[in-house]
Amino acid sequence: MRYQISAAERAHRRRRVLDFLARRRLDGLCLFGPTQIFYLSGFAFIATERPMVYALAASGATTLLVPRLEEEHCHTHADVDRVVAYPEYPGEKHPMHHLRDLLAGMGLARARLGMDSDGYPGVMGYQGPRLSEILPDATTEPARDIIENLIKIKSPEEIALIRESCRWGNLAHALLQERTRPGLTETEISGRASHEATMTMVRTLGPEYRPLSWTFPGAHAGFRGQIGKHSAIPHAMTTNARIQVGDVLVTGASAAVGGYHSELERTMVVGQPSAEVARYFQLMIDVQDAAFAAIRPGGKCSDVDRVVRAFFDRHDLWPYWRHHVGHALGMGVHEAPFFDVGDNSVIEPGMVFSVEPGIYVPDLGGFRHSDTLLVTETGIEMLTYYPRDLEAMTIPV
Amino acid sequence: MRYQISAAERAHRRRRVLDFLARRRLDGLCLFGPTQIFYLSGFAFIATERPMVYALAASGATTLLVPRLEEEHCHTHADVDRVVAYPEYPGEKHPMHHLRDLLAGMGLARARLGMDSDGYPGVMGYQGPRLSEILPDATTEPARDIIENLIKIKSPEEIALIRESCRWGNLAHALLQERTRPGLTETEISGRASHEATMTMVRTLGPEYRPLSWTFPGAHAGFRGQIGKHSAIPHAMTTNARIQVGDVLVTGASAAVGGYHSELERTMVVGQPSAEVARYFQLMIDVQDAAFAAIRPGGKCSDVDRVVRAFFDRHDLWPYWRHHVGHALGMGVHEAPFFDVGDNSVIEPGMVFSVEPGIYVPDLGGFRHSDTLLVTETGIEMLTYYPRDLEAMTIPV
Repeated sequence: MRYQISAAERAHRRRRVLDFLARRRLDGLCLFGPTQIFYLSGFAFIATERPMVYALAASGATTLLVPRLEEEHCHTHADVDRVVAYPEYPGEKHPMHHLRDLLAGMGLARARLGMDSDGYPGVMGYQGPRLSEILPDATTEPARDIIENLIKIKSPEEIALIRESCRWGNLAHALLQERTRPGLTETEISGRASHEATMTMVRTLGPEYRPLSWTFPGAHAGFRGQIGKHSAIPHAMTTNARIQVGDVLVTGASAAVGGYHSELERTMVVGQPSAEVARYFQLMIDVQDAAFAAIRPGGKCSDVDRVVRAFFDRHDLWPYWRHHVGHALGMGVHEAPFFDVGDNSVIEPGMVFSVEPGIYVPDLGGFRHSDTLLVTETGIEMLTYYPRDLEAMTIPV
Repeated sequence: MRYQISAAERAHRRRRVLDFLARRRLDGLCLFGPTQIFYLSGFAFIATERPMVYALAASGATTLLVPRLEEEHCHTHADVDRVVAYPEYPGEKHPMHHLRDLLAGMGLARARLGMDSDGYPGVMGYQGPRLSEILPDATTEPARDIIENLIKIKSPEEIALIRESCRWGNLAHALLQERTRPGLTETEISGRASHEATMTMVRTLGPEYRPLSWTFPGAHAGFRGQIGKHSAIPHAMTTNARIQVGDVLVTGASAAVGGYHSELERTMVVGQPSAEVARYFQLMIDVQDAAFAAIRPGGKCSDVDRVVRAFFDRHDLWPYWRHHVGHALGMGVHEAPFFDVGDNSVIEPGMVFSVEPGIYVPDLGGFRHSDTLLVTETGIEMLTYYPRDLEAMTIPV
């Protein structure tokens, strides 16, 4: 299938995980998190009160424990050796007791087991014992970091999916911008642009395209409440505001492709920008450029934040500082590491980051572009390519 | 504000939580879960790698610890006595250490503290110590159940929001059905119906309407992949299938109103149904009727599942059984308790449930209606009201 990770790549991922298990002398790994399960099995599903558990033995044998309602779905879509179904949650026998029996059958009842969490998290009303409780004779230890570390470096296949996501995020954003004009509401502009971009995306990519994401069922662009004065609230929520002349707008666009995402955000101005708006817009461009210039393989994530913080110092912008510079992304819309003064992770080729230092001026507006970029052997490559300059970002009225 | 829970109701919720704290001799409560925080503070936000923590002291004092980027947003939207902002995650000082200092300042460093989880869950790349680790002199104990129990019984205000959600789910579904015809794709039908219903919803409810939900930013109706043979997969994922004559379709519709949801699902048939399809459709109607009849205040949730299981026995339908009968809902799209043989919770007035026993026939299709109902003092009241019969659910071709 195009637009999805190949079986060969998933096999490679599992071999790498097995290497980590061997190094840590673990006999197996239990995964409860939907993203971790998806990474090794390719199975995207709706997580509910019913636990799904992926078990990987040091032998390489893989089993997915699923509720009965996912059994056929798993047989056709999950890349695992064996699917075992339990009837229901909570059921007459709790799913965690089915898991105990399953692990015992795999010879893991007294094993050293890694786990991404100690049992299934309490989502959608779920309650149940921890993994360490149901396996009193086993040794359990946290191992979420194995896959969290692997996902930091994107493979060529992953990068191709993220690139594909950038294309359709770009289209969604272009349609959003075209439709933005005074008098229209956020809901109308965003809904139409997202639907039109998604339709074009599915027609273009054809029947093999799958979003494999619950975050975005296709392409999306919107404002999420960052309109006018509210654009100064970095994580505003939708209020269905009506666009007015003079508004500063902060947008966001993305698309889901085979479970992968990208991030494109732009600051737009409705009508001729005031001198004050133009000044902050330019500062925002400059600080994003400073961040781009600070990213290099072998450097530290924290140093990128420091460069931005020095910019805030130099231009006396601290009253308008709200957040760090960016984050990794891929399967998740935010992933570690972070361009944050507290994150000393080394920047490595294959990492994909958002770069989005923001300037938020109360009662005036928010100023933030977010671009997605790939770290290469020698520097960075921009994956998003939407216009950035004020002229291009001015909505004619 | 209409279409939102009132401040008076939130104050009442906090008093009830304080009663539980007193009964359990707890000096305070720490909440990390977005839904639990929303329930007591009315603050809806995008949960990222940056923890948000709601602290309630036995005195009744409330504090919300938030990342800097949420500070202004909290001041205007969160119903708390005090907002304390930390700079960033991970930051030079970890947010959990800010939390430690905050709790110490509230006199809770050596207290008995309830918590909905032992620290912030590992979402979006977050890592950090547990609450019990940062407060070595305190006694911490699980207390997620306090709010999970409170939310089981819906107040009149909550029921009003769920009723409002049902109206717009109904419209979205009506538009979905009108637009469903052979040759169109899932994405096209669903995207247009959802956008049109959302537009009508925001125009009708006016500027005070807020979804306050990340699940649905308005009204929504779709198929989520349950088209033709794939309708036999209860939790299929979108494949953008094209509707064909003879397809069995399983739909879903909802709307977010002030953070509350409803659930409406229907089985539809494209063109004149075959005798086999008509037979399973009628069995599905009958089994849903049997479930409705089994729900009574004072009864047990498990008994409703038993009545449905007896129906499956009687009609020799077990090869087509996939899941329990339904779940509570409200802020969550699934909540406890469950109409499941393993859930002996007593059914009480004020509970709101989905009722959705399904019959899934491989290679033919899935048959499931889901309705949302309220348990009253004397029985049940249907909150959804969409047509159910085969004639109304047949798409003319």
